[in-house]
Amino acid sequence: MKSLVKIMPKKGVLDPQGKAIENSLNQLGFSEIKEVTQGKIIEIEIDCDNEKDARVILENASNKLLANLVIEDYEITFPKED
Amino acid sequence: MKSLVKIMPKKGVLDPQGKAIENSLNQLGFSEIKEVTQGKIIEIEIDCDNEKDARVILENASNKLLANLVIEDYEITFPKED
Repeated sequence: MKSLVKIMPKKGVLDPQGKAIENSLNQLGFSEIKEVTQGKIIEIEIDCDNEKDARVILENASNKLLANLVIEDYEITFPKED
Repeated sequence: MKSLVKIMPKKGVLDPQGKAIENSLNQLGFSEIKEVTQGKIIEIEIDCDNEKDARVILENASNKLLANLVIEDYEITFPKED
């Protein structure tokens, strides 16, 4: 099944990439754009037939490798397949 | 309003970061994890009161700055505020 792990900087943590995008967009004339945060998204094809077990595996993987929990939060979702 | 721009490598484009994560996870014993793709997600607070106009602005921003359309696809969504 297909899964998504979304990893964002925690609130209050400096996000220089997000700030750079925000400044560039404002300079390009996108004055409606107010606050930009950049994170990572990881699409994972996981060999598992139910969301409960898949979530346990993905939480484990996120804690061990994918996210830096000191500065990042993660969120696991299972998008519906088209 | 809050918006998300998800930017993923196009199918068939080399994704060395995704491959590196996949290999590391397999070496850590996550044998259920089959295929990993890494992309970017950009959270944008946009000063706009309807999704239609916001989408036009964000498509424009994605084409001009956020995504590299040669190798990346983007997708704009408006998550419900909690």
